[in-house]
Amino acid sequence: MTASNRVPTKEDILQAAARIAPFVHKTPVLTSQTLDSISGATLFFKCENFQKVGAFKFRGATNAVLQIKDNKKVKAVATHSSGNHAQALALAAKMNGLRAYIVMPETAPEVKRNAVLGYGAEVIPCKPTLEAREETLKQVVAETGASFVHPFDDYLIICGQATAALEIIEEVKELDVIVAPVGGGGLISGTALAAKYFGNHPEVFAAEPENVNDAYISVQGNKLVKLKNATSIADGLLTSLSNKTFEIITENVHGVITVSEQEIIDAMRLVWERMKIIIEPSSAVALAAVIKSQNQFRGKRVGIIFSGGNVDLKKLPF
Amino acid sequence: MTASNRVPTKEDILQAAARIAPFVHKTPVLTSQTLDSISGATLFFKCENFQKVGAFKFRGATNAVLQIKDNKKVKAVATHSSGNHAQALALAAKMNGLRAYIVMPETAPEVKRNAVLGYGAEVIPCKPTLEAREETLKQVVAETGASFVHPFDDYLIICGQATAALEIIEEVKELDVIVAPVGGGGLISGTALAAKYFGNHPEVFAAEPENVNDAYISVQGNKLVKLKNATSIADGLLTSLSNKTFEIITENVHGVITVSEQEIIDAMRLVWERMKIIIEPSSAVALAAVIKSQNQFRGKRVGIIFSGGNVDLKKLPF
Repeated sequence: MTASNRVPTKEDILQAAARIAPFVHKTPVLTSQTLDSISGATLFFKCENFQKVGAFKFRGATNAVLQIKDNKKVKAVATHSSGNHAQALALAAKMNGLRAYIVMPETAPEVKRNAVLGYGAEVIPCKPTLEAREETLKQVVAETGASFVHPFDDYLIICGQATAALEIIEEVKELDVIVAPVGGGGLISGTALAAKYFGNHPEVFAAEPENVNDAYISVQGNKLVKLKNATSIADGLLTSLSNKTFEIITENVHGVITVSEQEIIDAMRLVWERMKIIIEPSSAVALAAVIKSQNQFRGKRVGIIFSGGNVDLKKLPF
Repeated sequence: MTASNRVPTKEDILQAAARIAPFVHKTPVLTSQTLDSISGATLFFKCENFQKVGAFKFRGATNAVLQIKDNKKVKAVATHSSGNHAQALALAAKMNGLRAYIVMPETAPEVKRNAVLGYGAEVIPCKPTLEAREETLKQVVAETGASFVHPFDDYLIICGQATAALEIIEEVKELDVIVAPVGGGGLISGTALAAKYFGNHPEVFAAEPENVNDAYISVQGNKLVKLKNATSIADGLLTSLSNKTFEIITENVHGVITVSEQEIIDAMRLVWERMKIIIEPSSAVALAAVIKSQNQFRGKRVGIIFSGGNVDLKKLPF
């Protein structure tokens, strides 16, 4: 088996960390006395909002691009996304001399299309349905020979995302818990694997909007459930789990905590006002979960992964 | 002469840095490849937006409070302000066992009054005129025996503010230039003195809103000019220079660069979107000045002091 078709091992994650190190930011871990007193815990914030393209997604994309380049001798990558993964893959490809083809719904905001174009990728518009996206992607792959990089249902991606948790576990000694948001599950899967292999094996909790609680339902029922048309201010977390992430989460995550839209907004505002850093709503979901579950985390050393900082300043919830 | 009645010396600044070190954050210096390419210079951002109370003002206030406590055996401090200095003095006093009396116009926003009350200070309301503020302050000082701490026309304050520049000069080797915003002139005066005494003596430029260009006019005409009723989005910079700050600036600052309201907003947006940190408009004035003066700073190593991060999220200019 190669790294691309097995659940990442300890060695895979260490190799990924070394592989991507020249390309990614080693993001800072911040603390806040104010948020400690509000939460009753000692919090450590891993700031992937400061990562390149403004999100942890650049870690996984870089790991995938480097492996694809080495192993498959292909010259291009492709994906369908209008979010952080699209930008991450575009930049990772550009930095490593590969072409990137991004299938994007024709309804995607111009600012997102421009961001991807700015990283030198080719944008292929499609109708705004999942079927159209998948069909268009298939055509692109057939025509260009590009390697498809799924945003989360991909062990190379999961392995890359694991390096954020690896960094905070190495930097902050004796973490009791790590909380990260869950959407498609790439970040939380990587986090759970890193916690399983490294440090003193902190417990890992997934944080999810109540409005999009497919991970909560799937874990409770031990059966992968997908939601349709769910919506949340945490627009990075609208995706449902995949087979690969569901399996890793089921085996390695200690619980899923859901939070309301208002709890997400309140946590986001706390971070903006008190820490003076910009996080996107998806990041705030993890802090909201910790504040909501005070009894569970009181007195503990809790790592929180701020997944990204890409917000539209014209559409703030405050 | 004591430190309170002379222009701060090299030794005064070093002593202030040691004195306040247990109380203030040593704030980080951040960099941004994106802003480097936009500006054509290599930029280093000293992030006083991460300072306690969200602004550099806490340095000066802490230095003043500690000196007053040691030297004068007084038990209270007082000032008139509704801005960052009020919060800074209130917290510095609280941390050091002094009472703080803050004279504040009765029209000040509730959120500002509550912030000061939250630091345990007493708020004395007055009519919203400069005369009423000064008269009320006089009464407070007479009744309480508090020591008046002016927000900038005070050598202890200037000396405390100088420690921000001292830190970036020590951390970033071979800075060519430092740019800081100018309002009353406490920060820029401290910055200019630190640059005069330390490192390789970077040139210092003051950045000012065109709308409130009293420092520019005063320096050009070599005569202290005060403006009335000027307004700018950079609400921390509405104050005019004082005798003490005008003298230090005239002798030690290499130039004053003015920027338009739109340039301030554009620079602020750049920082929020690209650096993912929250700065207040006054901080953005310094970056706007560097972007505007590209020819002057091209290829240089430029320190920029982000003075603070206190913004009302309900009143953003974007």
